[in-house]
Amino acid sequence: MATVKVGINGYGTIGKRVADAVRKQKDMEVVGIVKAHPNYETRMAVQKGFAVYAPAENVDLFKEAGIEPAGTVDDLIKEVDIMVDCTPGNVGQYYKDKYQAAGVKAIFEGGEEHSLTGVSFNSTANYQESWGVQFSRVVSCNTTALLRTLGPLDKAFRIESAYVTIIRRAADPGDSKTGPVNGLEPSVRLPTHHGPDVQSVMPWLNITTMAVKVSTTLMHVQTVVAKLGRDATTEEVLAVLRAAPRVRLVKAADGIKSTNQIMEMARDLGRDRSDMYEIVVWEEGVKVVGDTLYYYQAVHQESDVIPENVDCIRAMCKMADGPASVAQTNQALGIDH
Amino acid sequence: MATVKVGINGYGTIGKRVADAVRKQKDMEVVGIVKAHPNYETRMAVQKGFAVYAPAENVDLFKEAGIEPAGTVDDLIKEVDIMVDCTPGNVGQYYKDKYQAAGVKAIFEGGEEHSLTGVSFNSTANYQESWGVQFSRVVSCNTTALLRTLGPLDKAFRIESAYVTIIRRAADPGDSKTGPVNGLEPSVRLPTHHGPDVQSVMPWLNITTMAVKVSTTLMHVQTVVAKLGRDATTEEVLAVLRAAPRVRLVKAADGIKSTNQIMEMARDLGRDRSDMYEIVVWEEGVKVVGDTLYYYQAVHQESDVIPENVDCIRAMCKMADGPASVAQTNQALGIDH
Repeated sequence: MATVKVGINGYGTIGKRVADAVRKQKDMEVVGIVKAHPNYETRMAVQKGFAVYAPAENVDLFKEAGIEPAGTVDDLIKEVDIMVDCTPGNVGQYYKDKYQAAGVKAIFEGGEEHSLTGVSFNSTANYQESWGVQFSRVVSCNTTALLRTLGPLDKAFRIESAYVTIIRRAADPGDSKTGPVNGLEPSVRLPTHHGPDVQSVMPWLNITTMAVKVSTTLMHVQTVVAKLGRDATTEEVLAVLRAAPRVRLVKAADGIKSTNQIMEMARDLGRDRSDMYEIVVWEEGVKVVGDTLYYYQAVHQESDVIPENVDCIRAMCKMADGPASVAQTNQALGIDH
Repeated sequence: MATVKVGINGYGTIGKRVADAVRKQKDMEVVGIVKAHPNYETRMAVQKGFAVYAPAENVDLFKEAGIEPAGTVDDLIKEVDIMVDCTPGNVGQYYKDKYQAAGVKAIFEGGEEHSLTGVSFNSTANYQESWGVQFSRVVSCNTTALLRTLGPLDKAFRIESAYVTIIRRAADPGDSKTGPVNGLEPSVRLPTHHGPDVQSVMPWLNITTMAVKVSTTLMHVQTVVAKLGRDATTEEVLAVLRAAPRVRLVKAADGIKSTNQIMEMARDLGRDRSDMYEIVVWEEGVKVVGDTLYYYQAVHQESDVIPENVDCIRAMCKMADGPASVAQTNQALGIDH
């Protein structure tokens, strides 16, 4: 089978990671990446050997900055089988029209609405639903996290209802424009989008989410209360979580009490950009009382969706079934969970 | 009626506020405060005209620092009707024995266990239970917050169960020793103490709490999910909260989106230390779906228990009934909610 030709439109937090992750796979290649403006990230892309494409109207800007683009976005679209669209939220429709006209497949990210594609993707919960489709959407970091754990738990125990509070990072580590710097900011419009977003993949799940933005950059934390379909034990739940793909259990007793300690461990793991692709669950924080389950999980907002994007390419291009793709992606990215 | 003679043992975050609040009441007076070590807060107490007492073993330290103590802790105990014990958590038993021996009443704070006193106090929920008792305990800031809103809601709708996530400040504004600085730290031992603490005042309430410590100093935020005994409307719930003592509704649309904006408003209110005694609920964040209520509330950890301490003195010294005491305290402290 020939390798699948992948383009990456947008080379920010997600795009640059998808580019590196795709490059590490044996069955796909990065034809080029699109960066809207020339900056340090663009130079890093050149240095890494990626062909850099630019929006037609910005080609001169690139030349002035000493970067010769390999072509325009439209040029790249003609050369690929599938585009991973990591442009900022809500410009998806503009590009979708271009992809449609060119007859190429495209993956959108969680910043776009489910309605843009009609199908949303998570490797664990619904890999097969994106099989062969032209357009799909990898849900956002928080939604991916919820699907990674609630998916297997729902299969094991049937979840009657779930109440989630998301304690959101205020900014990514490389940002310096948002806050709060010392404050807590609730998302007062309820429900927050995360619940309906989970339902775009698991439509039967009765889930409500609340969210508070806090002064941190490293990760989100979620508190989950789930009413199970039957009484269960904490040990049964831990067994399901241990077996769940891309879920990593850690122990406070082992010195991992906080998200900054999780990210310190991620740096020790030696992965690209010190990322933590897995959803991290505190083992001592899992507790079942009767039919009610409580747990905490941490979400590395910059990277948890990266393996999902790789798997989504395989599903849409009919390259491998779900478990095989997850295994391939994991091996290439150094994920052993 | 003669004014009640009050001593304050411990002059930190809570103690210094209780001292000022008691001083503002017409029916009680501060005989003296106890500070363990001479520091800038001790000098401020002297400057404010409080008689400063010291532990016997530290009297020399005070003299060396140029502060002449009015006496020892034991001296102060002999001069008061009631002591408000704001010493650090878990030294309560040591002092309780002294109060007991001297036959004086004493209030402990939320850092002590309910079992120390056998009765815990909240002005709204159970004022009368501390009527005339020798020892009572004003519950902690987070517990006080939950009682302020869940108490009236339970009366109006009967709460079947409540799931609360507490997003806790890492340190008080004046602290510089704790963290996390950039991270989120869940309390993995479930349930956290807050649920049982609420039950020390409302034993019939089925409540579970989870908590995450975050990088902020100003306030806590709580997300509350409450199953009501019947279907209700958002407007009905708002009406109950509007009528609830020491609960203040704010609007994100009015520019109060975050805890730092709440505290900015508190500074504009001109109260002592720019405190926010009320529990602050975001109006747009209150939502009822069927029988399930969701809301966010913010808690000024340094001050919400202060009016409660004043009321507790009145209950224990049989000075006024609940509503009368709340009204008096509120007027003296500038609380109009």
